Amino acid sequence: MVPSKKISLSEEKLKELGDNLARQISKKQNPSVKFPTRSLSNIKYNKQTKKLELGKSITERSFFNLGHSKKFLQTIEIASIIKKQLIETNKHEHLRGIFYIAKRTLPGTNINLVDDQTESDKIIEDLEVITGLSREELHVSANKMGSMVGSISLVDAGDLIDCSRLGRGGYSIPSITDELEFKKVEAKYILYTEKAAIFERLNEDKFWVKNNCILVTSQGQTTRGIRRLLQRLSEEQNLPIYVLCDGDIYGAYIYSVVKYGSIALAHASDRLTIPSVKYIGITMDDIINYDLKKHLIRLDEKDLARIKQISQYDWFKDNKAWQRQFKMMKEFHGKVEIQALATKGISFISETYLPNKIKNKDFLE
Amino acid sequence: MVPSKKISLSEEKLKELGDNLARQISKKQNPSVKFPTRSLSNIKYNKQTKKLELGKSITERSFFNLGHSKKFLQTIEIASIIKKQLIETNKHEHLRGIFYIAKRTLPGTNINLVDDQTESDKIIEDLEVITGLSREELHVSANKMGSMVGSISLVDAGDLIDCSRLGRGGYSIPSITDELEFKKVEAKYILYTEKAAIFERLNEDKFWVKNNCILVTSQGQTTRGIRRLLQRLSEEQNLPIYVLCDGDIYGAYIYSVVKYGSIALAHASDRLTIPSVKYIGITMDDIINYDLKKHLIRLDEKDLARIKQISQYDWFKDNKAWQRQFKMMKEFHGKVEIQALATKGISFISETYLPNKIKNKDFLE
Repeated sequence: MVPSKKISLSEEKLKELGDNLARQISKKQNPSVKFPTRSLSNIKYNKQTKKLELGKSITERSFFNLGHSKKFLQTIEIASIIKKQLIETNKHEHLRGIFYIAKRTLPGTNINLVDDQTESDKIIEDLEVITGLSREELHVSANKMGSMVGSISLVDAGDLIDCSRLGRGGYSIPSITDELEFKKVEAKYILYTEKAAIFERLNEDKFWVKNNCILVTSQGQTTRGIRRLLQRLSEEQNLPIYVLCDGDIYGAYIYSVVKYGSIALAHASDRLTIPSVKYIGITMDDIINYDLKKHLIRLDEKDLARIKQISQYDWFKDNKAWQRQFKMMKEFHGKVEIQALATKGISFISETYLPNKIKNKDFLE
Repeated sequence: MVPSKKISLSEEKLKELGDNLARQISKKQNPSVKFPTRSLSNIKYNKQTKKLELGKSITERSFFNLGHSKKFLQTIEIASIIKKQLIETNKHEHLRGIFYIAKRTLPGTNINLVDDQTESDKIIEDLEVITGLSREELHVSANKMGSMVGSISLVDAGDLIDCSRLGRGGYSIPSITDELEFKKVEAKYILYTEKAAIFERLNEDKFWVKNNCILVTSQGQTTRGIRRLLQRLSEEQNLPIYVLCDGDIYGAYIYSVVKYGSIALAHASDRLTIPSVKYIGITMDDIINYDLKKHLIRLDEKDLARIKQISQYDWFKDNKAWQRQFKMMKEFHGKVEIQALATKGISFISETYLPNKIKNKDFLE
């Protein structure tokens, strides 16, 4: 069900890691691995590619170094667990499961190899950088989240799934979407919304039928699985993607992660970011154009601090359209939820708001 | 797509509410509605039915009463929104959307009919009791959550969906499951787990194929939509349901809500509770039988307080098997997650743990 090519690549890369270490040991060298540093100081926004990327700084992690040796052991142990228990058996395991498997007591001591899941999670991210394989290619998953409906059919684990025939519920997006195979894609664009409630509204209104599109939702933050799914649909199917969020700084941030990437996953930007995505709303201008002032929710100190912080990010600071939005957020001293559009009529969003935005190409970039 | 009978019932009940008020007004009486009180003092555990239920106390809410008049207006306004904008158009709206629609300023004042969603949410629960209709029959939804796979096909909004052909992802459970129509159900039982990670493990291992069952997951708490789905499958298809949770007090509580109901939704017990569900694990005995002591996570003060509180609930306090569990929780001073089973092998849960439990009927009730 999984293309065998991928398994070979993952096995090969992990074997390479092991072979290198074996070679160092047989030469009586201090065994070590080198990889691009993932600390904040080595993460840059690349204006050309419009992606968050790792810089040129390199980390070396070696066994005979008191400060490194535990992390070195964790790295090798988790690489071995992944190779033997996941890749070779063609199984997948969640971050939490990997933590438990790795949490063994070192023989002759009372020291656990890992004590806390944050340790194994970080090592798995390191292994992405060390091997050049994504977490998904390492067969490690995280919680699944989100649904999809629309004019698309795909193959998932051997099953052909027609996402235009899945009722109100839709297709439940798996945590790893790399292995999905797209079949018939008739949709003209994708509308991605952070809110499952809006997805249900649009699905009930058959918005995707009338507008020949695909609807995707998460619930809050966009998972890696959904980001990868959207990126693949954008690149492989050449579909425009419009992002629909609440009119607040968190909505702007959700959009920016989908578009430019995030600091924590800068090393995975190539597989996750989508420079072409556009923000369809809710904008601060919508508050005026659609008379939503009365539905503004007052900002608190935390919101204001986030606006200050996010507006200064490299990928936003020279963007005039977004700077104008941030300024208006502060002037309104308020935020507005997508659901506020329901005051204009339950189906106003699907019959008027979204069609107008798309017809007039009224997007933020 | 929705059976028209249901629409008529909802319309009829809401019309009845309006007609009664109109009659009172034409008789120059103080317009009022009467309904069973939903406060804690009026909620009882019924040992016969094994359900949390409302007692006999009655609330009267009238217009010409300073303490009632705002709530009275909210009740009538929201009933009217539901009748005109949802039932008559056959649309559904989320709790958040209803809040926005109801949040209008009363003419000639600067008073909003509702200022906070908790107000409209409470009125919708009141309307359930007043009309005898469920929130779902009133066409009001909440966030959707959860997935299903297995030997079952169903009709959702006109689409025939075969849940045995939905890949790794599965069927995304809609927020309202009352309107689903079950078709071919070949499964012998349902395994419901609170953890999406475990669902993905079992689905990858094709547990439901090998064991001819249905897998259902939420992520944490069981939504009303999932509870109703499970209840309907239990009653209409006569399927046993096994609940798989973490071995801790929160797992016990999730199980008890599915089985007996919850205090907040005691008025809806008849449509949501499933007295026949059984708890399959993780139990405190599993910690010994499967040698999981080393994976115990130490309890904190909050956990201990919850154990004390939940163990004294009416539906647990005379249950010897569960009292023994609570005692062991305190003795271990620890909790254990389902994922700890991965230390025995990634597929230990699907190949050994669950089949043994089911074969030996090793359940808690």
